[in-house]
Amino acid sequence: MTDAESKIAPRSDTSTLPGGHVTLGTDRPLRLDCGVEMRDFAVAYQTYGTLNADKSNAIVVCHALTGDQYVSGIHPVTGREGWWDALVGPGKTLDTDHYFILCANILGGCMGTIGPKETNPATGKPWGLDFPVITVGDMVRAQVMVLDHLGIEQVFAVIGGSLGGMQVLEWAASYPERVFAAIPIACAAHQSAQNIAFHEVGRQSIMADPEWCGGAYQSQGKNPHRGLAVARMTAHITYLSEPALHRKFGRRLQDRDVVTFGFDADFQVESYLRHQGSTFVERFDANSYLYITRAMDYFDLEEKHKGVLADAFRDTPVRFCVVSFTSDWLYPTAECRRIVHALNGVAANVSFAEIISDNGHDSFLLDEPEFHKVLRGFLIGAAEHRGLPRVSP
Amino acid sequence: MTDAESKIAPRSDTSTLPGGHVTLGTDRPLRLDCGVEMRDFAVAYQTYGTLNADKSNAIVVCHALTGDQYVSGIHPVTGREGWWDALVGPGKTLDTDHYFILCANILGGCMGTIGPKETNPATGKPWGLDFPVITVGDMVRAQVMVLDHLGIEQVFAVIGGSLGGMQVLEWAASYPERVFAAIPIACAAHQSAQNIAFHEVGRQSIMADPEWCGGAYQSQGKNPHRGLAVARMTAHITYLSEPALHRKFGRRLQDRDVVTFGFDADFQVESYLRHQGSTFVERFDANSYLYITRAMDYFDLEEKHKGVLADAFRDTPVRFCVVSFTSDWLYPTAECRRIVHALNGVAANVSFAEIISDNGHDSFLLDEPEFHKVLRGFLIGAAEHRGLPRVSP
Repeated sequence: MTDAESKIAPRSDTSTLPGGHVTLGTDRPLRLDCGVEMRDFAVAYQTYGTLNADKSNAIVVCHALTGDQYVSGIHPVTGREGWWDALVGPGKTLDTDHYFILCANILGGCMGTIGPKETNPATGKPWGLDFPVITVGDMVRAQVMVLDHLGIEQVFAVIGGSLGGMQVLEWAASYPERVFAAIPIACAAHQSAQNIAFHEVGRQSIMADPEWCGGAYQSQGKNPHRGLAVARMTAHITYLSEPALHRKFGRRLQDRDVVTFGFDADFQVESYLRHQGSTFVERFDANSYLYITRAMDYFDLEEKHKGVLADAFRDTPVRFCVVSFTSDWLYPTAECRRIVHALNGVAANVSFAEIISDNGHDSFLLDEPEFHKVLRGFLIGAAEHRGLPRVSP
Repeated sequence: MTDAESKIAPRSDTSTLPGGHVTLGTDRPLRLDCGVEMRDFAVAYQTYGTLNADKSNAIVVCHALTGDQYVSGIHPVTGREGWWDALVGPGKTLDTDHYFILCANILGGCMGTIGPKETNPATGKPWGLDFPVITVGDMVRAQVMVLDHLGIEQVFAVIGGSLGGMQVLEWAASYPERVFAAIPIACAAHQSAQNIAFHEVGRQSIMADPEWCGGAYQSQGKNPHRGLAVARMTAHITYLSEPALHRKFGRRLQDRDVVTFGFDADFQVESYLRHQGSTFVERFDANSYLYITRAMDYFDLEEKHKGVLADAFRDTPVRFCVVSFTSDWLYPTAECRRIVHALNGVAANVSFAEIISDNGHDSFLLDEPEFHKVLRGFLIGAAEHRGLPRVSP
């Protein structure tokens, strides 16, 4: 844990971060799936491009577990490029010269939207584990409230990968009239046992850290950064693929010619993972990690529709583009095919593309030319049907 | 970490455990790959069956990362069946009515052989991180010393899965004249980047536990059981397969009809993993886990032979039977095929079987009928060539 030894706390005051901040649930509370009613809660969001006069060019981007609303450009906290900078910007696949891109930090997140690290008004202390357990459905309902706030009746498209893809499915299933096109990427209609298992070891890693303090680490001036780093390292392996790890690192040693016969990071892959762990804890909240992984584990569109996934999409007017990647073993093509089969079963308008890539689950974050080509093609076709001005291909 | 909350220390006095105990390196030290010379060190071993008059019926079983010498029958510490009880016993595939089975606890282990939890004579305290980093080669050299002690010139067969398979390859490569037949199972000639990565997160999990105390937890009356449990949980996922997890657990809930909107083990797969973690820490030493995973990561027969794996086996008289399992993603068939290709390249006598099973890497520990049939067939053929009495098929 050498790299992460230094005490690091994620920036706690996120209200001053750039972008939109809105307080929702003032008139009408958000009723969470767990039964709790949420009032007067903050959602932070970021927009790119310009909303057109008839508010028909909005694309909602749904971020993944460790993402946030800073999709493009330089991230205000990390100083690095946004997580989808390759995709979002002027002239890019999600062309901000034509579309109005909106991304909101998800419920339970730690970048300005209400989550376990924010202050519980009832106690004046951080929520910690008193924060209600949220679901993907709750996340999407909060996003719909943001759209209501902005006066956007129907979005042109909803797009996202991984947990973002789950949100896209939830959007299409719960608000079909408010979505013209839906692009779920590298995701599944329910979380598999293996994925629940990987999340569980991540959570146990955090909860095993004495500095977690039963979730009350903020009040006690602690930070379970060691546990969170290990959780991130484990998860990071699942985001890549064996061939990519072999290609990038193989058994190459880190700044040495021979092994040291010790427990230092002899191999490049060890050094890389330690770096992933230590940089992650600088920007992410451990309790948020617990809550968001829990929401993913609970996600099951099939169970929600009494075991018939197709019923989630019966009579849907939404156009779908489902994308998977050959080397993604977290949300493999078979899971995406299940979604496509369900959509086919209700005669929905659906395109499906499996992109050949050895970059694993992370492919959806990378500059994969075929992936971008598929998205661009689908968006141009959908924009034409929606009557949006033509985007040059 | 509910299940593992209770303070548990692995049994520290292993010298009274049943089985053979021998002090090696008295006349001539064992020179480890790291350069350290080891003198007067204990190796604990267990035998099953009877050594015949000309000492030609010995089978050395090499155990895996978390295994030990108690292959068959009831384990003296856990009270459960030995890890290969399905395979070893009278009338079983490794028939103790015909063969003399020997399994030694590996160097660095925690079941009676010298390892980090044993006492360092120089200080009178447990070795901890002062224990030298050992290799698979060192483990095998110690086993050869046990055979010398027992006066066994040549073993009929060496067999093992996972790390046990690596030891088998090392045996055949380094001591071809002392092995008649070699059966490496579910293993590889070198540890892949992904496997190093999984080991590294396990090690980081242990080292992140404050009770690890820089490796000196025994002297300080501590035990990094939380970190070790998380390491075990993560590793356990890699021992199974997605289809097996789906079949065994799917998204089924544990003793409840609906999710609890909390961080308790709602899903059966979570409960199962927590159980795996908590039972493991009762019998295993955290530092041993560090040392043995390190030895596996360092294993690279190819690099040892200047990049030409075939050179490890040039002119080998050993008969090989290489076995892989279709759903093993830790040591997939492709890795076993590399071994087979290298053996073919030097015209070695080699059988290869890929067993169809959805049980993942753990298949080698299970009662897989096809697997046992392959082993039995190979052993009967080899025994005939060796001139051993005929074993009924």
